[in-house]
This record gives sequence, C-alpha cells and structure tokens, in this order.
Amino acid sequence: MADELKRGLEGVLVAESDLSYVDGEVGKLVYRGYDIEDLARGASYEEVLYLLWHGSLPTAAELDAFAADLAAEREVDDDVIETVRALAGAGERPMAALRTATSMLSAYDPDDEADAGEATLRQGRRITAKIPTVLAAFERVRQGEEPVAPDPDLSHAGNFLYMLTGTEPDDVSEETFDMALTLHADHGLNASTFTAMVIGSTMADVYSGVTGGIGALSGPLHGGANQDVMEVLHEVDASSKDPVQWVKDARDDGRRVPGFGHRVYKVKDPRANILEEKLRDLAESSGDTKWLDYTTAIEEYLTEQGLVEEGIAPNVDFYSGSVYDSLGIPVDMYTPIFAMSRVGGWIAHVAEYQEDNRLIRPRARYTGPEDSEFVPLDER
Amino acid sequence: MADELKRGLEGVLVAESDLSYVDGEVGKLVYRGYDIEDLARGASYEEVLYLLWHGSLPTAAELDAFAADLAAEREVDDDVIETVRALAGAGERPMAALRTATSMLSAYDPDDEADAGEATLRQGRRITAKIPTVLAAFERVRQGEEPVAPDPDLSHAGNFLYMLTGTEPDDVSEETFDMALTLHADHGLNASTFTAMVIGSTMADVYSGVTGGIGALSGPLHGGANQDVMEVLHEVDASSKDPVQWVKDARDDGRRVPGFGHRVYKVKDPRANILEEKLRDLAESSGDTKWLDYTTAIEEYLTEQGLVEEGIAPNVDFYSGSVYDSLGIPVDMYTPIFAMSRVGGWIAHVAEYQEDNRLIRPRARYTGPEDSEFVPLDER
Repeated sequence: MADELKRGLEGVLVAESDLSYVDGEVGKLVYRGYDIEDLARGASYEEVLYLLWHGSLPTAAELDAFAADLAAEREVDDDVIETVRALAGAGERPMAALRTATSMLSAYDPDDEADAGEATLRQGRRITAKIPTVLAAFERVRQGEEPVAPDPDLSHAGNFLYMLTGTEPDDVSEETFDMALTLHADHGLNASTFTAMVIGSTMADVYSGVTGGIGALSGPLHGGANQDVMEVLHEVDASSKDPVQWVKDARDDGRRVPGFGHRVYKVKDPRANILEEKLRDLAESSGDTKWLDYTTAIEEYLTEQGLVEEGIAPNVDFYSGSVYDSLGIPVDMYTPIFAMSRVGGWIAHVAEYQEDNRLIRPRARYTGPEDSEFVPLDER
Repeated sequence: MADELKRGLEGVLVAESDLSYVDGEVGKLVYRGYDIEDLARGASYEEVLYLLWHGSLPTAAELDAFAADLAAEREVDDDVIETVRALAGAGERPMAALRTATSMLSAYDPDDEADAGEATLRQGRRITAKIPTVLAAFERVRQGEEPVAPDPDLSHAGNFLYMLTGTEPDDVSEETFDMALTLHADHGLNASTFTAMVIGSTMADVYSGVTGGIGALSGPLHGGANQDVMEVLHEVDASSKDPVQWVKDARDDGRRVPGFGHRVYKVKDPRANILEEKLRDLAESSGDTKWLDYTTAIEEYLTEQGLVEEGIAPNVDFYSGSVYDSLGIPVDMYTPIFAMSRVGGWIAHVAEYQEDNRLIRPRARYTGPEDSEFVPLDER
C-alpha cells in the first residue's frame, strides 16, 4: 500500500463507468459512446435520460412509456410547496432552497426505505420529474406570483419553461432549453457526481445522493461559472464600453474573463459550439443580438490574443448564460438549472456504482499530536 | 500516473489531518492526541467540540464563552418547526427528516453566502446547536406531543434529553449521554466525514457538507448498526430464550450477531469499554439489569467461542443501543443521535480541509462503448 498523499484525488481511478467520456485534447464528449453533438441535435433530454439510465437509446414505444411515466411524477405534495414558500420568504438562495426541497421530497416517496439500491432508478425518476416543479415554484413565489401546476402534455424542457413563465414556450425556446439540459446531463466524475456516489456507496437512498450532489454543485469551485459570465456581460453592458475594450481593460486590471479555460478541455468545449449556434437562432428569432454580438466579439478578440492556442478556449459556460438570459431565466437560477439537468447523471452514476457496490472510504494521514496529556478543566 | 483502479479508495490517502487517529490493533482512538477514554471520562462534549474546532482543550473561561455561544444558538425558526411537523405527519424516517431540517436551517443563517470557507466554524456552531432542537421536535411531534423549547442553562447533552422528554434528566443520564456524544464525535475519514469534505472542497457552505454527511450516515452500510443490536436484544427478549441459547441458535441459522467486528478495530473497541461501564451505572441506578445481563452473557459466550481472539470483538454499537434504550430513546433515533454527535467531526474536517483546500475530483475509467452510431428516433 503506497502511502503517497493524493491531494484532491487527482488522477485517482475510483470506479469504472460506461456513462460518459471526455477527451479534452480533441474536444469530445460522449454519453455511452454517442457524440454529444448528435445527442444534443437529434435526441430529447428524455431520450438522453433513458440512454443514461437504461443503457441504450429508446425506441419510439419505449420513449412514449418512459416520458409518460416521468411526466406523471411532476406534481409535488402541498407540504413541499409550503416549505418552498417559507424558503422564498426567508430569502434563501436558489441552490440551498433546491437542496432542502429535494431532500424533503423523500417523505412523500412511495418506495420502501429498505429497497434503497433496487429503488434508485424509480426514485431517481421521481426526483428528476419533481425538481423542475420545486424550482419553478420557488422562482415564482420569490417574484410574488403563484406557482404554476405542471402540464403533463409538455416535454420536460417545455414544461419547466411553462411553469416558470406561465405561458407555453415557443419551439425555438423549448428546443434550445432541451438542448442545454442534454449538454449538462453528465460529465464524468465531477465533484457533485462523486459526492452522490460516495453517499450512494453507503446504500443510502438516492434522495440523499442527489441532495449531496446539489450541495456540492452549489460551491463556487463547481457550479456557478455560467452565472459569472452573465454577470460580466451585464457589467460590459452597463459600462457602455465596447466589449473588446472592456475585456482589454479588465485584463489590464488582472481580471480573468470567465467562460474561458477548463480543467479538462484544451480546445473549444464541444458544448460551447452547440450553444453558440442556439444563441444565434434565439437572436434571429427575437431580433435582439446583443449577447451574441458581445460573446462573438470577446471570443474573436481572445482568440486573436492567442488564448485559444494556449488551451484557454471557450467552455460551455461562456454561452449558456446568454442562452438562459435570452430565455428569460434570472441569473441566480443558472446553477439550479445545471442541477436540474445533471441530476440525470448523478442518478445514473449512483445506480451504476451500486450494481457492484463498495463503500467509498479513503484514509487521512494523521499529523496531529501524539500522546497529549489530559489535564482536567479545573487545572487548565 | 498509475492507472490502477482503487475500488472504494481503500488505503488511499486523500488528506492530512490533525483531528483523530484510530489504532485498530491496540484499540486506541485519539482526538488531537488525547485518548478517548480520558476525554469521555474527563471532558464534556462542549470541551471536545472546542478541542476539535479550535485545536486545544479550553480553559474554564474559554469554555464558558464557547458553551454560552453554543447554547444561545439552539432556537430554530418557526418555519423549520412547521416543516418538521409536515415531515413527521408524512411518516418521514428520522434521518431523512434530519437531512431536510438541517438543510433548511441555512435559510435563517445570518452569515453572508460569499464567506463559505471563512464562515465554516460560525455556521458549524449554529448547526451543531440546532440539530438537537429539530431532532427532539421531530420525535415529540411524531409522538403526538408539542416540541419543548431549548433551555440555555442546560448542557448540550442535558438539554437534548430535556427537549426529548420534557423533564430535566438526572445526573447519571446526562453524564452518560454526554459521554456517548464524545465517543461518537470523530473517527477519521469514514464515509460521512469524507462526504462532507468532498462537498466542502467545492467551497459550498457547511450546511451543504453536513446535509451530505447526514445522507451518507443514513445508509445501512454506515450508520444504523447500533439500531441492529437493539433490535436483536428485543428479539432475544421476545423469544423468551436464554440470550446465550438465542445466539447459539441464531449462529446455527447462519445469522451474524451485530455489534461484533469492525473494519478498523481488531480488539475490543475502546468506546465499547466505556459504554459498558455506563450501562452498568445506569442499570444500578434504575435497578433494571436486563440489557446489561443480556449483553454481558452474549459477550462472554462469543469470547469463549474464540471470536474476540479472531479479531471479531465488541464494537461501540454493541453497547450504545442498550445505553440509549436505558435513557428512553426510541430505536430509530439512534442513528440521528450519532449524527448529532458526529456533526462536530464533520465540521472540524471541513474547516481543516478548507484551510489548504483542493477540489476533490477523482476519475472513472471509461468502459462504455466507443463511437456509437446515432440513429434518429423514427429509424430506431
């Protein structure tokens, strides 16, 4: 047994997985061997969930049954909505509200607690179906509006936008949001997925794993970068500077431009390419090209400056913020939407790991004092 | 970079820690160098929290200030109690209810969300103070009684028993429960502590880390063994067999006796020795020696059978159940009480890790298909 310290577990192989693979050198992401571009363009988020959870893309009949089962699980108990109201009233942050509401859902789950491992996919389907409902309810209550009940006839993506705004989205909005969900559904063993696996390895129910995953994703070192990009774009807008001039000045001040560079990708993130295209569609459809103009100008400028050649290329977050903003989604809901998509991956990894489960329990090297002599309180 | 698969991360060193050390060969557990026996017998749980969080045992003045700060944080917002009522009404399991209520507490925390790392110990103190309040409230509501407000003049241990039962505990009960809290406060990098660290490594707030830890501890492969022991003792009792005969028959049927054997300890768990003593005190004080008689007889019999020599010795769970039962605590609250103690260790590990933080992100070996050819839905 090597006693080498593996800080951050970098490079440590903890499991085998059939779920997703990232090749950062060529900018490739696959789910079960399918290229993310093919899936984003050709499959719905429901098909992607089926693929991740059941191992293959569904036939039309399989998809109909699966999507109907998922849609039938969207409603949440009134008690959960009451807690969501309390959280909104207390000014809770959206990710923390989502963590609490998701944890609470387990109280209303019909599965027997003793069946944790076997029930993972059934409970996971319920969680995935209900997360959009609690998120949209939180957002509406926070805005002083009443929650909108889910519509089982709409797609997963379309229903979320409907519950958020109260009106059915147009086709380009629904398609774009569906694509964003597919793009974020899985990405190897990031910190939130690993959190869900560690929790799942105790054979705790998948509500515990997903709640833990939401907690991990809420950390500024994990989720939240798309929010940073959008905040910068708003800052550019408010500055009334040309975006390229703003970036020049920001870099002169030693600021890093968010949305560029990735721990894994050394070339442009394949997800960024797809979202850039959708941002273009949205801009054409609405006639408002501001974010498209800004992001295009900034990407061109930073590419000219040689950043992309150095491996600091646009990542998925560089475009997702503008896309969400164009869909009318508030900035602090971006990370919760990431969770709403990634929950599919968390559940898939927990289910896969539990099939050949082993409790995840590393060690720490003890560096504290030896043989401290105990002195009672009255002699200290 | 070795590409060896480290299943369960067994033996992998992920961090250095000054907090606790377990020597399973000689049956030794230390917190910051202090022997667990000295701490359990000579220090209160509040002193142990101070030791784990601040690095040394407090002076009398430091302890007064620390305990007063902790006691002042016991009350929880009415909204949280309302959610606890809803969870009890829905028949939620105690660990899941604790997970939800703890997550919800963050909505009422006065610290700024941007200060996650720096705020860990302040927020941790609030969480540690409030967990007993939500647990006792849940238990009372579940029993059809009203929650009892915390009493800031009682100790952490004494106040919990008071909130649970509505009457101030006698000295031996308070001392015993305080000792049980100290014994469970930390134990190296178990799965729940590691979960809290992984979440904390994203610089998420400590509510996320503790909520994740509770989720991990709820798994049957982690918490819950003291509950198993008590269930067996009740089964023995109901069988009207002699306990030794019951164990003989159970072993003939291939059943494992819970509370014996531990992944780390090869000799009798030092925590078991201390709890055995307290069980004796409680039996003397109440005159009811049943659980003491049963556990003593079973331990003697299994020792004679050579189990202890083979390294399958009584662990902490073998005695803790009987102790909790003697204090009038229901069986399904044992794991939540474990959480109520271990939260001190979770917070200490998160705070320690964040001081020299590095995002925890291992890898998975991709074993899925390569280059799957995408076929559109209407051609599948």
